[in-house]
Amino acid sequence: MRVRILVSFKESVLDPQGQTVKNALLTLGYGFVKDVRQGKVFEIALDGITEEQARRAIPEIADKVLANPIIEKFTWEILTEQKKV
Amino acid sequence: MRVRILVSFKESVLDPQGQTVKNALLTLGYGFVKDVRQGKVFEIALDGITEEQARRAIPEIADKVLANPIIEKFTWEILTEQKKV
Repeated sequence: MRVRILVSFKESVLDPQGQTVKNALLTLGYGFVKDVRQGKVFEIALDGITEEQARRAIPEIADKVLANPIIEKFTWEILTEQKKV
Repeated sequence: MRVRILVSFKESVLDPQGQTVKNALLTLGYGFVKDVRQGKVFEIALDGITEEQARRAIPEIADKVLANPIIEKFTWEILTEQKKV
């Protein structure tokens, strides 16, 4: 089973990396870019647990290890093979 | 319109960040973790272009600015409001 966890800053937190990317895109002429937010993505391969166990473990892992809950939020999903990056 | 671009290392490229996260999870007792790959996610808000124009512009932006095509690959999608992180 593969899961994908997206971690990004909360809306209220400044995102200087995203701002820098936005400025670069505007300089390059992509004037239709209104906002850029940058975050992290984790793709985790799991073995030997059921989907139900994964649905309990993954939010715990995200909260404890992958994201800093003070300033970051996360979403996650179980990947079908087609969605694998 | 909002788009999400996922950038990750190609399979053949070592991912020391992902490896470090994997080792941390194993140490914490999450023995069912078989592999971790870490990448970047960009969420971009666009204004004043059609979806067709976005479908041309976004791969160009990803290839030129967001990813290093030598070692990274990307996928992208247009976000519906429900998918917004």
